[in-house]
Amino acid sequence: MGRKLNVAIVGATGVVGSIMRRLIAAERGNWGEVRLVASARSAGKRLEVGDEVITVRALDADVFDGIDIAHFDLPDEVSAEWVPVAAAKGVVVIDKSGHFRMDPEVPLVCREANPEAALVRPKGIIANANCTTLALIPTLAALNAHFGLQSMSVASYQAASGSGKEGLEALYAQSQKIAGVDRIGTEDGDVRAVLGEEFHAPFGAPLAFNVVPKVGGWKEDGWTSEELKVRNESRKILGLPDLKVASTCVRVPVAVGHSQVVHATFANEVTVAEAHRVLGAADGVELVDDPENMVFPMPIDSVGKGGTQVGRIRQSIDFPNSLEFFVVADNLMKGAALNSIETADLVRRELEAA
Amino acid sequence: MGRKLNVAIVGATGVVGSIMRRLIAAERGNWGEVRLVASARSAGKRLEVGDEVITVRALDADVFDGIDIAHFDLPDEVSAEWVPVAAAKGVVVIDKSGHFRMDPEVPLVCREANPEAALVRPKGIIANANCTTLALIPTLAALNAHFGLQSMSVASYQAASGSGKEGLEALYAQSQKIAGVDRIGTEDGDVRAVLGEEFHAPFGAPLAFNVVPKVGGWKEDGWTSEELKVRNESRKILGLPDLKVASTCVRVPVAVGHSQVVHATFANEVTVAEAHRVLGAADGVELVDDPENMVFPMPIDSVGKGGTQVGRIRQSIDFPNSLEFFVVADNLMKGAALNSIETADLVRRELEAA
Repeated sequence: MGRKLNVAIVGATGVVGSIMRRLIAAERGNWGEVRLVASARSAGKRLEVGDEVITVRALDADVFDGIDIAHFDLPDEVSAEWVPVAAAKGVVVIDKSGHFRMDPEVPLVCREANPEAALVRPKGIIANANCTTLALIPTLAALNAHFGLQSMSVASYQAASGSGKEGLEALYAQSQKIAGVDRIGTEDGDVRAVLGEEFHAPFGAPLAFNVVPKVGGWKEDGWTSEELKVRNESRKILGLPDLKVASTCVRVPVAVGHSQVVHATFANEVTVAEAHRVLGAADGVELVDDPENMVFPMPIDSVGKGGTQVGRIRQSIDFPNSLEFFVVADNLMKGAALNSIETADLVRRELEAA
Repeated sequence: MGRKLNVAIVGATGVVGSIMRRLIAAERGNWGEVRLVASARSAGKRLEVGDEVITVRALDADVFDGIDIAHFDLPDEVSAEWVPVAAAKGVVVIDKSGHFRMDPEVPLVCREANPEAALVRPKGIIANANCTTLALIPTLAALNAHFGLQSMSVASYQAASGSGKEGLEALYAQSQKIAGVDRIGTEDGDVRAVLGEEFHAPFGAPLAFNVVPKVGGWKEDGWTSEELKVRNESRKILGLPDLKVASTCVRVPVAVGHSQVVHATFANEVTVAEAHRVLGAADGVELVDDPENMVFPMPIDSVGKGGTQVGRIRQSIDFPNSLEFFVVADNLMKGAALNSIETADLVRRELEAA
């Protein structure tokens, strides 16, 4: 092409948007113009991208003129409307919403599993998987390549920031309100009574000193959207349409960092030593597994980290060819912003080579 | 017998001891003397059991004279020494430590699963299972009786009070220290830096705004004692020596209430409607399962409740004869004090009828 590509961040003002700006700033030299886009309400705001101060533009059709690649981080229904508008202008869209993920003509890309899928995009759209799935994929992809993943049972420990600014602020407000209340969370200090119903949004129940076994909306047969995403998006990214998945998603009072307990069964025999060897060399995976020295992944240690962390790897006692392990990732980084940036990098190199 | 039995609470001053005293007070009429026992350090303290004020006696051999049933809640190594002393005096001991649980001559009793086991105690000792296992058993026992439990994968969300007063106080101290710290738990507010290492005890890492995938001590092959207890004690109580169990135990910043995600597979076909029917009628189980109305079990709602709660019951999508569900119990009640009280009730009725 000869010129530098122009990139847009659509949804630049949110929690993920602020990380997108920082990640773009770190690779500023790869890009021509960096354009920031948000709702009309935020238009005119001036936001930093590294040393630059860029004025936010309102989302409309013209805002995509001259843009090569656009990162979208908008609610499902807004993406559903505006992603095709951008794509129709020839923009390659990398969309973080749930709307296009299961569309057979939209690749769902995680660099560590299926980078080649980014190059085949009949609609000009690439989808970014949900944060819980993306936290799992680098580990699962590496293990699958060596041992053949057949089934998994997953339980999540998801951070408040998975619900964006509103979720984070709610956790902070609840935590401040109960801090110092005598014997809070015991029979003498009822969390519900201290907080009252005004603290129920956006989780539907108090989150401080609690866990809430509901992430996402309700779908058929008692499943949540998040639980079905973990199953369906893992199958699609890993290219394993018959992968058996059991998933239960739970919100925990953590600011940033999604954790997951995984019980996984493989076609082939697997040992902890072999898993260590494979994961120690895997792209996007940090092996954090020296338990007797208290070395294992935790959400507070995942914050701001680029990839995913895996540890507590054990050979299953009662199940052949199976492992137990614990995976953590910064849900705003690999779970959202970083994966989108990594996918854009695949597209940028393709377009620059064309 | 004609007379009322005398009962001792050994370890009367701890978090569980205070609940033991309240539960005994509620059935005070069933007992003759209620004796409170603790370490020499606490001897002479005056504690309430209902309207009575009872002076705590130091643990020694004489303290068991005239006692019929003794509840022990002491560290493993202290129970190992003193439980046989009491039993040698003809006292029926119900021991909450881990020391005797897997002894083939010591029954491990949960009223909802194996009440008959309380009557066969060659050593005069009955063991109380660990709190995580006890939270599961009423649900598992009912489902096993109807559908034949074959395997399960369990992930726990365990409260700070599982580590007693020290655990609770640590969570409170950490929560107060970080409350109001700007953007705590994000890249701008590092939990470790704000808390410092003095807040690491007793969990080995900060618990506030974090989850710690380590409960108990380290055992062989990377397993924790708690994870092995969930497997081994479930097998023993349920009378299923071949039950396949995968278990990962995680501490969460909750004061009271252990939660667990369970994926369970049965010998026979099972539907959600049948599981609801069975669990709705099961002893010690409260069915809390109307998700679209935000009705599901949560730790803040389990506090002080007598039994266990189960909800989020779904038929597995990819696994035949399998269910996903979410179980919660007050770890100090059914997980400890209440189960010991219920077991004592079985013994009391037996001895009174003799």
